[in-house]
Amino acid sequence: MSLISPIPVRLKEARTRKELTQQQLGELLGLEPNNASARMNQYERGKHTPDFDTLKRLADILEVPVAYFYCEDKLEAAIVEAVHRLGPEQKLALLAFIETLKS
Amino acid sequence: MSLISPIPVRLKEARTRKELTQQQLGELLGLEPNNASARMNQYERGKHTPDFDTLKRLADILEVPVAYFYCEDKLEAAIVEAVHRLGPEQKLALLAFIETLKS
Repeated sequence: MSLISPIPVRLKEARTRKELTQQQLGELLGLEPNNASARMNQYERGKHTPDFDTLKRLADILEVPVAYFYCEDKLEAAIVEAVHRLGPEQKLALLAFIETLKS
Repeated sequence: MSLISPIPVRLKEARTRKELTQQQLGELLGLEPNNASARMNQYERGKHTPDFDTLKRLADILEVPVAYFYCEDKLEAAIVEAVHRLGPEQKLALLAFIETLKS
């Protein structure tokens, strides 16, 4: 059994939203310029999986939480990204709102 | 630089909420009984990191999305867990609600 990680899809989604090329994102990540595009391409094709440190740095550059890269559902990904920009009080208000949706 | 993955904390949180022991969860995962508890303990201490397939199966057993294990913020984790139980229409309603919070 080999399940498909959502990282490639989410990474490309967050990168293109920021209007960055693979080369640009790779260089922002600190990769060598002559290697940056190829490595980012490998991540987006699922050929290699970034380790946690790399994912964390990609998340910071792309302004999403690391959890975003693991969202299998597109709507859940959009929610995770939006929630990440809220403050603690807004997050608590959101949890209360979700309780009303479930009932 | 080595950043700390939230997997150990979230895994223990989701397991204890289900009132499962490390031994029980390991066996549900399909580990050998004489190895189950030790391996789950390694995951919860961050000694080993489960691969994506294993995380996906743990997520299914514990009824959380895989993204839950990567939430660094406790409130975001609670939101991700709650959102996962909503249907598509409820998720859309939630996204609209978040927009009102941000303004």
